[in-house]
Amino acid sequence: MFLRELFHPGSVAVVGASRNSAKVGFGVFANLVQAGFPGPLYAVNPGGGDLLGFPLYPSIGAIPGPVDLGVFVVPPKAIIEGIPLLAAKGMRAAIAISAGFKEVGGEGFALERALEEAAAAAGIRILGPNCLGLINTHACLNASFSRGTPPKGAISFFSQSGALCTAVLDWAVGQNVGFSKFVSLGNKADISESDIMEYLAEDTETKVLLGYVESIDDGRRFLRAARGTTHRKPVVLVKAGATGAGARAASSHTGSLAGSDHAYNAAFRQGGVLRARTVEDLFDLAMGFAMQPVPCGDRLLILTNAGGPGILAADTAERLGIPLAEVSSALRGKLAPKVPPTASLANPVDIIGDARADRYRDVLEVLADDPSIDTVLVLLTPQAMTEPEETARATVSAFAGAGKTVFASFLGEATVGGARRILSEGNVPNYAVPERAVRALHAMRRYARLRPAESPRGEEPTKDRPDPADRAVREALSAGRRVLGEEEGRAILEAYGFAFPRHAFAETSAAAADAFRSLGTARAVMKIVSPQVIHKTDVGGVRLGLSSAEEVERAFVEVTSSVRRFAPEAWIAGVSLQEMIIGGRELILGMNRDPQFGPLLMFGLGGISVEVLKDVAFRVAPITRREAEEMVREIRAYPLLAAYRGSEPADEEAIVEALLRVSRLSCDFPEIQELDINPVLVLSKGKGLRAIDCRMTIAEANG
Amino acid sequence: MFLRELFHPGSVAVVGASRNSAKVGFGVFANLVQAGFPGPLYAVNPGGGDLLGFPLYPSIGAIPGPVDLGVFVVPPKAIIEGIPLLAAKGMRAAIAISAGFKEVGGEGFALERALEEAAAAAGIRILGPNCLGLINTHACLNASFSRGTPPKGAISFFSQSGALCTAVLDWAVGQNVGFSKFVSLGNKADISESDIMEYLAEDTETKVLLGYVESIDDGRRFLRAARGTTHRKPVVLVKAGATGAGARAASSHTGSLAGSDHAYNAAFRQGGVLRARTVEDLFDLAMGFAMQPVPCGDRLLILTNAGGPGILAADTAERLGIPLAEVSSALRGKLAPKVPPTASLANPVDIIGDARADRYRDVLEVLADDPSIDTVLVLLTPQAMTEPEETARATVSAFAGAGKTVFASFLGEATVGGARRILSEGNVPNYAVPERAVRALHAMRRYARLRPAESPRGEEPTKDRPDPADRAVREALSAGRRVLGEEEGRAILEAYGFAFPRHAFAETSAAAADAFRSLGTARAVMKIVSPQVIHKTDVGGVRLGLSSAEEVERAFVEVTSSVRRFAPEAWIAGVSLQEMIIGGRELILGMNRDPQFGPLLMFGLGGISVEVLKDVAFRVAPITRREAEEMVREIRAYPLLAAYRGSEPADEEAIVEALLRVSRLSCDFPEIQELDINPVLVLSKGKGLRAIDCRMTIAEANG
Repeated sequence: MFLRELFHPGSVAVVGASRNSAKVGFGVFANLVQAGFPGPLYAVNPGGGDLLGFPLYPSIGAIPGPVDLGVFVVPPKAIIEGIPLLAAKGMRAAIAISAGFKEVGGEGFALERALEEAAAAAGIRILGPNCLGLINTHACLNASFSRGTPPKGAISFFSQSGALCTAVLDWAVGQNVGFSKFVSLGNKADISESDIMEYLAEDTETKVLLGYVESIDDGRRFLRAARGTTHRKPVVLVKAGATGAGARAASSHTGSLAGSDHAYNAAFRQGGVLRARTVEDLFDLAMGFAMQPVPCGDRLLILTNAGGPGILAADTAERLGIPLAEVSSALRGKLAPKVPPTASLANPVDIIGDARADRYRDVLEVLADDPSIDTVLVLLTPQAMTEPEETARATVSAFAGAGKTVFASFLGEATVGGARRILSEGNVPNYAVPERAVRALHAMRRYARLRPAESPRGEEPTKDRPDPADRAVREALSAGRRVLGEEEGRAILEAYGFAFPRHAFAETSAAAADAFRSLGTARAVMKIVSPQVIHKTDVGGVRLGLSSAEEVERAFVEVTSSVRRFAPEAWIAGVSLQEMIIGGRELILGMNRDPQFGPLLMFGLGGISVEVLKDVAFRVAPITRREAEEMVREIRAYPLLAAYRGSEPADEEAIVEALLRVSRLSCDFPEIQELDINPVLVLSKGKGLRAIDCRMTIAEANG
Repeated sequence: MFLRELFHPGSVAVVGASRNSAKVGFGVFANLVQAGFPGPLYAVNPGGGDLLGFPLYPSIGAIPGPVDLGVFVVPPKAIIEGIPLLAAKGMRAAIAISAGFKEVGGEGFALERALEEAAAAAGIRILGPNCLGLINTHACLNASFSRGTPPKGAISFFSQSGALCTAVLDWAVGQNVGFSKFVSLGNKADISESDIMEYLAEDTETKVLLGYVESIDDGRRFLRAARGTTHRKPVVLVKAGATGAGARAASSHTGSLAGSDHAYNAAFRQGGVLRARTVEDLFDLAMGFAMQPVPCGDRLLILTNAGGPGILAADTAERLGIPLAEVSSALRGKLAPKVPPTASLANPVDIIGDARADRYRDVLEVLADDPSIDTVLVLLTPQAMTEPEETARATVSAFAGAGKTVFASFLGEATVGGARRILSEGNVPNYAVPERAVRALHAMRRYARLRPAESPRGEEPTKDRPDPADRAVREALSAGRRVLGEEEGRAILEAYGFAFPRHAFAETSAAAADAFRSLGTARAVMKIVSPQVIHKTDVGGVRLGLSSAEEVERAFVEVTSSVRRFAPEAWIAGVSLQEMIIGGRELILGMNRDPQFGPLLMFGLGGISVEVLKDVAFRVAPITRREAEEMVREIRAYPLLAAYRGSEPADEEAIVEALLRVSRLSCDFPEIQELDINPVLVLSKGKGLRAIDCRMTIAEANG
């Protein structure tokens, strides 16, 4: 709603425009004037007079024409008072540049709330407060106090840090890199990164979105916006505050492993968002996306005039899993006449140190035309015969309209500056070192693969929660129990299709012996049943490998008396006698509710894989089948699920189904805060899973 | 020998100097003249005449004075013929710039051998052939065909790729970065990276050594040279060809995991060498080492004028394990009066967006003086009030002589160029993004920790090999056996102090039953003994858990008949009956002989850790006790050796001893090519190890 007026206003008013050039109110108005905004500009300042040839209106009321966008550079209270006045002039969107709101604490919180309310009452959208402003080069709109305006281009950038905006702007101006939109989000009282993504997804002047985020308030909205955007164009984000502090004290395995950084990583991945490790990486990727098409395939050819850089590029490609294209004999036949006999026609193709621009040109024209290659990386080191600028021109013209992806890395500095400019003007991104070019290429391919194919269904809790599960949760809540053990958990999980070992309940030793006979299993497990006992092993409440009715009878006496001794306060209902599952590999499935993103699902192999090596996969629920499959395959220990040391392959399909069920359960029951199904045994292919134990914590859902 | 004359000649002759400015023979001589070499320069060209004001002597014989360094820019044969002639003039060192040797194959190999022989016969050292030449800025010596000469500085660089030399030179000239020595190694017919390291270790004009290597011919010499050098100054190397191809087909676990890249990593680490991932990282580290002292401790303080970049720096620090210094209340008390109340005095210290240079100066002076901080990282984003150049000056002067380490990251481009120059001239390294500064800092601390404290002893095979081991190896070799199984391996390993389970040999079922009784063990293992059977399990040659003499008798019959059926060609000597070890955790210890570095030791936990997760540690033997301890601790699964799931901690000390023994054995017996002791069971603390099975391959040692 009305975001179009934010980026493409017909007219702009600056409330707080100043004649004092040291003030932000001057900077903003001067930027609007200098960027050549074509529509009416109004400056408001009670002092009157004029500014850069424009009259200063003493009040908002004095503005003679309609206003689409209001830019406020006045103290908080004056903004709140000004909004309805400017809305009366037709304002649809506003930018609150001034600070003094939430970020100062105390009274600032109330002011920010009042600002939100004023905007809502006036029916407008508001950017900020406490921000640098906004630039749209394609509309000749610079409504910010930036130093300088970047050239027009296809990259858009939004940032939660105003300072990072200034740094990026300074870099863009210095490097002459074109930008489309610059958005400083500030405190995000109203407009968030999700709003900006959704708007720019539709913006034909934006080819790639970059962003810097510190926190995301509504994780689920973000995920929807990201899915919708990355489907159309790449989104690359730097997420700060990535480590440490996120991990919270939690009582489940899943909880202790699920630091909030895992939730961000999972959400980015599911939303098709690329996460850049550094601001530098952010721009390396942006250059690639803005200047070149996403490669149609993985086949990379490296062209070089020297061995060393070629090897470094090939090393990086191999490390990142990018296959080097094989030089076919047909291609070899076409290249051979263009190069001296000492050139190497393997990949990297090394046309050796005395290559002038003509040799590069001859080879590049062949490569641009060859169907067995998706991407060409052109390396150049400045040697005695090298012609960097001519070679840059040859690179640009060979690939113009070829439909292939071409990257360059011209090494050095003193003699390659001109060549770099030529490449950049010709839309060939140049990287200071070959490794960065390969990394950017890898990210482009990753984008093509990550791009979400479908959105998962069932984000909202179902109206039809399965009865037994619903009852179990409601009863526990009304009894004030927060932790559900195996017995209650089983009722819930069985309602979601989980299989447990066959089992029978027994209140006496004789009944237990009978139960053993009727189970008809070779070996059985006995577990105490007591609502007060959650960690059964700690109180001697578990016995394994019982193989006769007599053993079972004896075990009943031992188990119950042990529990009585170690947990005298526990009420003992009886024991559960269960079929003992032989074989199978231990898994853990879990869920932990993340404050931003909601249910965060976890999958790992049991035992040391999870506890020591932390080899687990996360996704935000609900998940698609494809996402469930990815979870299973991305853990390092995945090969253990295949045929291994003589065992048959595990029932992978059943794991995928189980993850989808946990996803469903987590969405249906917002009451479940944490869930561990641990261990789960996966049997061989076609034989399914058996959940052996489980544990949940619940709380009243917030609605 | 004579490397001093290579870097500090009193006089230089260029054989093949040319008046044709397109020729390398012109470029080299012109560089010598333009760099202002102070001693006599002689140019030799049969055409006569003069060149840049110097006479062209028609022959080497015509040179009128003595010559220390000869630079050859003539065809291969003319170099070989010229060496003795110039040696007769007193030449101690030569540079063979010309190509046409080993790198062209065929006849080139013979020419390169002839070149080596000519140098050896003349008693001189030779750099190259097929190289760019050499620069020593401190001697005003540019004996290369580089474009331009870098300014004087403290960084030295050697490279196996000439093109990378030119790229780095171009970068140094363009960025105005000072260098001390530039060495293009070319084909390394004589002078290797090890020679250069050893020489520059002593060079007072070099503070840090950088290098690019593709292959190292004599790995053990390299390791010695590295240990000797890094003890005095940092060495940072890019190793190309890092992935893939290195892994060779091998029949042992150790062999299949020990790709040659692992050997390089192990050797670099043991030699105290830092491995840079990219050429860019190489220079990031070089700037840090060249300009600043290695921090005395880990405590980092981040100073910033904006939140975002501070968080990004803190994230990187946390990820790399660098602790942020705690701001003491004393320090807080000193800082508070210098900054506005809205500044944040936690770490990162954020002196907020309107900080001018004076606020930076006040704070920096306090920080430079504070004993609770080792390193300060100064961040700046160019905001409206920011004074980048004045702030740069304040940074330089606050830390001059403070004995602390200071790094900067002034973000942006257009408005910070001048500030960057001021920082650089003031020896404060500036990084384009904060993350790169933190990475460089991390590498400096890593250098301080890696620096080898002691050299291991026993690199040479002992004269006193233990008798039983010596006999076992000699007998197997003379019998033509290449693979030694458990029986022979045990003899060798026991001679090196390894404990095996108690065991007895039996030729009949009755003898096996007797053996069981005399072992006095609750459970026993039976294994077939046959020199032809290496994989005993595959032919039914192993039985576990035998618990009575009767069971043992029966097992004897079953085992021997199974082996007879599945391996009819095997001669069965009998069975070995062994005590079955209960408890203990599975380890694997191994060795694989690397072609460059010699015995490469491996350590890992058994089972999936090694086979699936490849969680293993490598070191080149011989190792020190400290290196053995590091091996044990660096595997990811190390926590499993501590008390875990109710088990007692494992006998870590015994593992360290075992690694030292394998190291000793590997050096004593160059005949042993591969060795797996797998599994080894480590018992609880104080109870030692038991080797359960082992396997070796042997070959006649090469001397």
